[in-house]
Amino acid sequence: MKINAQRLLENLDRYAQIGKKGRIGVERIALSKEDKEARDLLKTQMTDAGLEVHIDQLGNMIGLRKGKSEGKPVAFGSHLDTVYSGGRYDGALGVLAGLELIHTLNDNHIETDKPLALVNFTNEEGVRFAPDMMGSHVYAGKADLSEILKSSAYDDPNETVGSCLKSIGYAGKMKPGAIEFDSFYELHIEQGPVLELEQINIGVVELVQGIYWTRYVIKGEANHAGTTPLYYRKDAGFASAKVQQFVGEYARKRDSRVLTTVGSVKFSPGAINIVPESAAFTLDVRSTDETLLKEAQKDIDAYINDVVASDKLLLEREEMVRFGPVRFPLAMTDSVQHATKSLGLTYKRMPSGAGHDAQMMASFCPSTMIFIPSVKGISHNVEEYSHDHDVENGANVLLAAVLGKSGIG
Amino acid sequence: MKINAQRLLENLDRYAQIGKKGRIGVERIALSKEDKEARDLLKTQMTDAGLEVHIDQLGNMIGLRKGKSEGKPVAFGSHLDTVYSGGRYDGALGVLAGLELIHTLNDNHIETDKPLALVNFTNEEGVRFAPDMMGSHVYAGKADLSEILKSSAYDDPNETVGSCLKSIGYAGKMKPGAIEFDSFYELHIEQGPVLELEQINIGVVELVQGIYWTRYVIKGEANHAGTTPLYYRKDAGFASAKVQQFVGEYARKRDSRVLTTVGSVKFSPGAINIVPESAAFTLDVRSTDETLLKEAQKDIDAYINDVVASDKLLLEREEMVRFGPVRFPLAMTDSVQHATKSLGLTYKRMPSGAGHDAQMMASFCPSTMIFIPSVKGISHNVEEYSHDHDVENGANVLLAAVLGKSGIG
Repeated sequence: MKINAQRLLENLDRYAQIGKKGRIGVERIALSKEDKEARDLLKTQMTDAGLEVHIDQLGNMIGLRKGKSEGKPVAFGSHLDTVYSGGRYDGALGVLAGLELIHTLNDNHIETDKPLALVNFTNEEGVRFAPDMMGSHVYAGKADLSEILKSSAYDDPNETVGSCLKSIGYAGKMKPGAIEFDSFYELHIEQGPVLELEQINIGVVELVQGIYWTRYVIKGEANHAGTTPLYYRKDAGFASAKVQQFVGEYARKRDSRVLTTVGSVKFSPGAINIVPESAAFTLDVRSTDETLLKEAQKDIDAYINDVVASDKLLLEREEMVRFGPVRFPLAMTDSVQHATKSLGLTYKRMPSGAGHDAQMMASFCPSTMIFIPSVKGISHNVEEYSHDHDVENGANVLLAAVLGKSGIG
Repeated sequence: MKINAQRLLENLDRYAQIGKKGRIGVERIALSKEDKEARDLLKTQMTDAGLEVHIDQLGNMIGLRKGKSEGKPVAFGSHLDTVYSGGRYDGALGVLAGLELIHTLNDNHIETDKPLALVNFTNEEGVRFAPDMMGSHVYAGKADLSEILKSSAYDDPNETVGSCLKSIGYAGKMKPGAIEFDSFYELHIEQGPVLELEQINIGVVELVQGIYWTRYVIKGEANHAGTTPLYYRKDAGFASAKVQQFVGEYARKRDSRVLTTVGSVKFSPGAINIVPESAAFTLDVRSTDETLLKEAQKDIDAYINDVVASDKLLLEREEMVRFGPVRFPLAMTDSVQHATKSLGLTYKRMPSGAGHDAQMMASFCPSTMIFIPSVKGISHNVEEYSHDHDVENGANVLLAAVLGKSGIG
């Protein structure tokens, strides 16, 4: 039994029209009118496919399909929201491949042993409301719903998650987490170049890297670049350059077992002839190994403190994200590997470099992910693309893995 | 004979009300309505002081005072425009001390041998219309007037120097440079910390540093910070960090005989979890020694090219400013030194780190500058301040130097 690739691709394209941006891209920010339109379509499609639709208090959507037994459903899905100028696959693929799975079972008149649950989590991207992975975070019971509902938009303090959920009509009654899951599968694009470079069909995701995000501001003194001798300068920019170089070399010295990135730097006042008064920069540190992750953060902080002290500067530091690595259970990853092999596809056991809903669900039920190749690794970009045959392969692996877990009587 | 310090300080304060910003600061952008208001006041004050006012086609204002002879006038002055959020001394001090000099001669019924000329140059700062030092540049015959009149505002392409001159009523008839000068003196604040730190009254300015400004954009590829292996990255940010550090260390290795500054850095897209696609940064290189200046620029460019090549990146490079060092004639600096000593004040022969109108006038007539201390070296800032006694000293040195040059019959 295989999914209907034509139907899945057409449906992906249909959703990609909602918030279409660029040639093939999408901008569908969580809780926007485009998000509402996509949710409305999904609700209709779920209902038409015979699913019983539940909306929880954070707007997470769950479509239940009965099984022969009364147990917990095998769940699968992802999210329909995107980043600004995003792609058509990130999130939508996992939801729509799940819907295609349901359609395929309906076409083949198959009733699974365990019930099934198709999930669309609210606000995975977190671009307008913090934190990201919001829906799965709350569903897994790791964040306080009432606090999250008060989270306000970065661009408008008067709009909160709660008020926007109401205005798009997705403030449901169900308590998040009320429907327990047997397990959770998330099909997703890799968002990196590895599978394509190594010409592998499927990534069996063993774990999600730990992620530490920190924001720093080094503060010195603004001075005239032509009239201020070096001994008189408190050059926040030069100090930040030393830090950026240290951070860049750090990962290279550790053979990529730790990834370190400075993605944003801004000098103030930022004039060609003024010694920078302040340098604000961000640090992204990732590792699959929690010990290395903590050590890297500590080493970099120690270096920053040394530079700031020796250059007589001041430092502000804000910890934005501290997620440890999440390892998926062997039984789950083996179920994906088995499904992949049964379809005659090649695979690679690999970590996920990005954060995903499955990482949050891992504390709620046995979870894992299935990756398909991303062309040139491009993602979070309107040019994000995965080949049709890879989309098809991914959806078939999802189907096979879910059927293996839920059982066909 | 001494100037009237009370009158000069009151006049400085009167002009500081035109475009007042902050507690003691001023924002009086060239060719703005504030500039017009200050020019109108100066024209009135010049006329009241018995000067014959000439306005040239670029709005440069020259107030002539007859001498016993018919020769070229000894000129002095500076500019009345400021940067955004500027100070009350930068430019205005040189103009108003010059006016005070005229008042003092009038009070004492003194007629000099040579005529005198008080000058207010148009748009020295260049913050809204490029280039800076515009009025003196054109007056010295180093730039084409018709091209300069077409220069449009950074913030409004419909406003040009020519249209703004007309709208404020300062598009004069006289050809720039038509009145030749015997010599030119410019009294100015140091805009650096040296005189204050060394507790010296007067800076005898021997030369103006050469200034090279260059803008670079290193271009790589935007990639996900979590999913992109190091070997796959084209990290424009890391490359720029290496350059910034090289630039910062360059001056330090040369004992400040070359000053190097990266004042502005911006990564794009500038997100915490995206490897920077591009890094735009500026380079300010200065030296009193043209050989060192050229060598520094060459060394830094070579390093940038190496980094860009080895990291497989692309480079855009724009030369914005290339001014070689300008040395003032010994006879001019000696005249200031002699005047300073005659007043019992301490002095230091020093370079100017910043660019000034006198640097442009140097190719037109023998020129030099007189510096007074800037508190904490702060300038181009609403907190710019010089002590009253230093203002008084500076104006007295200007008076003594001008009288020495023009002669009292």
